[in-house]
Amino acid sequence: MKKTVFATPQDAEAAFYDAFTRNDLEGMMAVWADDDEIYCVHPHGGRVAGVAEVRESWRQIFKNRQTLVFQLRDQHYVHGMMLAVHSVYEHIELEGESEVRGATLATNVYLRTERGWRMVVPHASPVPASAPAPARTVPKTLH
Amino acid sequence: MKKTVFATPQDAEAAFYDAFTRNDLEGMMAVWADDDEIYCVHPHGGRVAGVAEVRESWRQIFKNRQTLVFQLRDQHYVHGMMLAVHSVYEHIELEGESEVRGATLATNVYLRTERGWRMVVPHASPVPASAPAPARTVPKTLH
Repeated sequence: MKKTVFATPQDAEAAFYDAFTRNDLEGMMAVWADDDEIYCVHPHGGRVAGVAEVRESWRQIFKNRQTLVFQLRDQHYVHGMMLAVHSVYEHIELEGESEVRGATLATNVYLRTERGWRMVVPHASPVPASAPAPARTVPKTLH
Repeated sequence: MKKTVFATPQDAEAAFYDAFTRNDLEGMMAVWADDDEIYCVHPHGGRVAGVAEVRESWRQIFKNRQTLVFQLRDQHYVHGMMLAVHSVYEHIELEGESEVRGATLATNVYLRTERGWRMVVPHASPVPASAPAPARTVPKTLH
């Protein structure tokens, strides 16, 4: 399968949430690095590692699922030359509903490969209503 | 305060869990990068960002807490030149108890600074009993 080349971690992240929203398994896996280092922590879950297991976990999630609407808020970035870490709050709605279902806080790690930036780790956990409001920060690149 | 120079992410991680175990706030903060990009996600929590807020969160955690014993298991590493990502299961006991209290799954991100490797992000979430057993993987360095 031909994969899109993502010029920045933000491009890879946009494609990740686009595929997530559309229940698009091929589009989702096209965002990931082809590497058995990759791993995923879904909310309430343990670690799922390697291309085959990560793919199967998304197949299970997308099976029969309703379309979701994501609002990403309060992004916080730690950027290196070869790896980038994004912290994002995911506010999730089911399509057609006005009520927000709940928030998830994700640490998404992207790797710069020979073929552009790729997802290597999303670690997501649910955020309780009592969690402190996030401090607003400005994206900045580390040296 | 004079800070130790950690030659590898593993050295920084060992110091992080040593300070965590001993409720040692100064030792804990000595492991972190001096940078307002740093952030922390404690289990069940939201994002705590910046040196002052991260420090205050650990002060609250260490206040009056009993000494913990950590067993780290099933480490999985994604290493770049400047950033390293460690996934570790933390099995936690209270000192003097034989029963394991519960497991936490942490994604710990380390940054290579001019003064060695430093913690920039630990994102920790509780692991339910039903979580899949982690696949065993061998640490490997990415190019």
